[in-house]
Amino acid sequence: MFQSFQPPQRTLMGPGPSIVHPRVLEASARHTIGHLDPAFGDMMDQVKIMLRHVFQTENAMTMPVSAPGSAGMESCFANLIEPGDKVLVCINGVFGGRMKENVERCGGIAVVIEDEWGQTVDPEKVEQAFAEHDDIRILAFVHAETSTGVESDARALAEIARKNNALVIVDAVTSLAGIPLLTDEWQLDAVYSGSQKCMSCLPGISPVTFSERAMQKIGSRNSKVQSWFLDLNLVMGYWQSGSGGGRSYHHTAPVNALYALHESLVMVCEEGLENSWDRHSDSHQTLVAGLKDIGLEMLVDESVRLPQLNAVKVPDGVDEAEVRRYILREHNLEIGAGLGALAGKIWRIGLMGESARKENVDFCLSALKEAIDQQHALSYVA
Amino acid sequence: MFQSFQPPQRTLMGPGPSIVHPRVLEASARHTIGHLDPAFGDMMDQVKIMLRHVFQTENAMTMPVSAPGSAGMESCFANLIEPGDKVLVCINGVFGGRMKENVERCGGIAVVIEDEWGQTVDPEKVEQAFAEHDDIRILAFVHAETSTGVESDARALAEIARKNNALVIVDAVTSLAGIPLLTDEWQLDAVYSGSQKCMSCLPGISPVTFSERAMQKIGSRNSKVQSWFLDLNLVMGYWQSGSGGGRSYHHTAPVNALYALHESLVMVCEEGLENSWDRHSDSHQTLVAGLKDIGLEMLVDESVRLPQLNAVKVPDGVDEAEVRRYILREHNLEIGAGLGALAGKIWRIGLMGESARKENVDFCLSALKEAIDQQHALSYVA
Repeated sequence: MFQSFQPPQRTLMGPGPSIVHPRVLEASARHTIGHLDPAFGDMMDQVKIMLRHVFQTENAMTMPVSAPGSAGMESCFANLIEPGDKVLVCINGVFGGRMKENVERCGGIAVVIEDEWGQTVDPEKVEQAFAEHDDIRILAFVHAETSTGVESDARALAEIARKNNALVIVDAVTSLAGIPLLTDEWQLDAVYSGSQKCMSCLPGISPVTFSERAMQKIGSRNSKVQSWFLDLNLVMGYWQSGSGGGRSYHHTAPVNALYALHESLVMVCEEGLENSWDRHSDSHQTLVAGLKDIGLEMLVDESVRLPQLNAVKVPDGVDEAEVRRYILREHNLEIGAGLGALAGKIWRIGLMGESARKENVDFCLSALKEAIDQQHALSYVA
Repeated sequence: MFQSFQPPQRTLMGPGPSIVHPRVLEASARHTIGHLDPAFGDMMDQVKIMLRHVFQTENAMTMPVSAPGSAGMESCFANLIEPGDKVLVCINGVFGGRMKENVERCGGIAVVIEDEWGQTVDPEKVEQAFAEHDDIRILAFVHAETSTGVESDARALAEIARKNNALVIVDAVTSLAGIPLLTDEWQLDAVYSGSQKCMSCLPGISPVTFSERAMQKIGSRNSKVQSWFLDLNLVMGYWQSGSGGGRSYHHTAPVNALYALHESLVMVCEEGLENSWDRHSDSHQTLVAGLKDIGLEMLVDESVRLPQLNAVKVPDGVDEAEVRRYILREHNLEIGAGLGALAGKIWRIGLMGESARKENVDFCLSALKEAIDQQHALSYVA
């Protein structure tokens, strides 16, 4: 027999989930109603409208996938790729690699260009790949690489794709609401994100948006989408109809998680999207200055750093994992580890959503300094 | 600009979500921690142990999929089917049809046997199909058909499959915790359920369990699982490891939804699984007797009725949808409509989880009587 679970009171400054505001938690715990309830339909319509604003798009097909960002990713690839489609995948971190996996599992042919982890996707390589292959149907890249803290130039990359008549799939899991993401202006065709990053919502929901061009490709497929759960032709029957009725049952939506998303969106709109971007940027400046003061360096060049995801080099002689354990144990503070090639070499400090506030930055800096000093002290003793 | 969403206070007696207990709502709103936090890992281990109890299994691979039941379904099919595999699918309602869709989208060949909606899956037809096809690898059927309220004989059907060396996939979305479901005793190989039915949890999570035989088939696949998000070979890296460390990142788990599932499981264990089955059965008896008193008939033969999902025939001259609208408007009470072939012909009254209590049954009966009387009165006036 187990007891109710009482989570510890962590301060979340890793790569996500970010700190969830009490208003969002409170909203998520409201009375559960049916997923076909007319009142719920009205709320769904509001979620769609607010998501369009946050994505900076007028795409009709803008909605949350009822599952985490990985499913949002799969929703884009599974709907847009037909067997044999050639897809140019840009890899400069973990999540570009995951895109390649998705392409291949959908029966597509992945043409891969790679950039070093910690660098941006190089537009010249993208140009070159299009020059070498005249049958690339889709370009896929990560806007904000959560594994390295690098922003790639989504506008420039999308422009190359457009010139070559390819659709553009963008991973905006970590960028949405944290830095400018201009879906329509940049002419992106399928963009997916996550609830638990710069919107500070509960983890588990993946907002997505699809352009008219994308919907035309999906509507004219020769084969069925391989995932029934993610098939937009079916999902849209539930999400697209007005509240007046006619919503058709597809799956049981995660009602309370959508209450939470609604509240997060209300909060983003209250603050203003540009103010949210500015807050992320300001927190980042404060963090970088403070890190410098305690002798720590950033992995990524200043010009392409993400404010919301800070890759910090682990100094020589410091045990990366022990520092994280120390601050979790002593300060209930979570920061992230490096992934893949960067495991053991960096910490990842998230300044996403509610985490991007000066008091959190100060707290994180002092805890980090203490943990490192502690290690140095111990090594002197030894 | 939108306001925070305040849902109406409905009583949920449709096909799910069922009434969520305040304890579960409260648990779901606890402080969000990281999906790789050691404290969260401990909670995950407890969830697995309790799920094994509820599924009546010792399967190591028992865990919640981070998405609704439809994704749990897809998890079973996508992992177990390889292109060309022949799968015997039994259809006696909406959800059998969805299984066929899944088989085909996974590249399998569906051999279909059909039974009338409102009838059980006929074991003789299953025997016959196995006799006609010697290369059926998997048998798939719905234990508790939510669209009709029929229970099929999972033990007998699985026995036929076992005799024919086929694996067994079972839809237990509506049966888990509501009626006996004996995964190990009946030798089921892959079973999926939903959080929002007889466990009265929030919608959005799908508990699944896979037998050793199933895991062997998955481990010896020649092709990759077509869904990266649902690939058990990857998911198990996150769910299988002990809390001592070594959990590998796969996707960001829906942390708060899993708090809710944990609390629901604690509550099921506190009540006792058999007591939960009995409570569902008792509520059902009370409902059926009350329906008879007000002149309403059940669709399904007594011997195969599900206690938790009651298909009630709409009397001649009564407007099915208007009755539902009336009781939603006047009593904040939700009951379900018929689906597919049964649309307009039945109501579906759910007695699942917290909804399966005498006070709810009485409330539902009196509201239903009032709504029908109201219609008759109006038609007299007309």
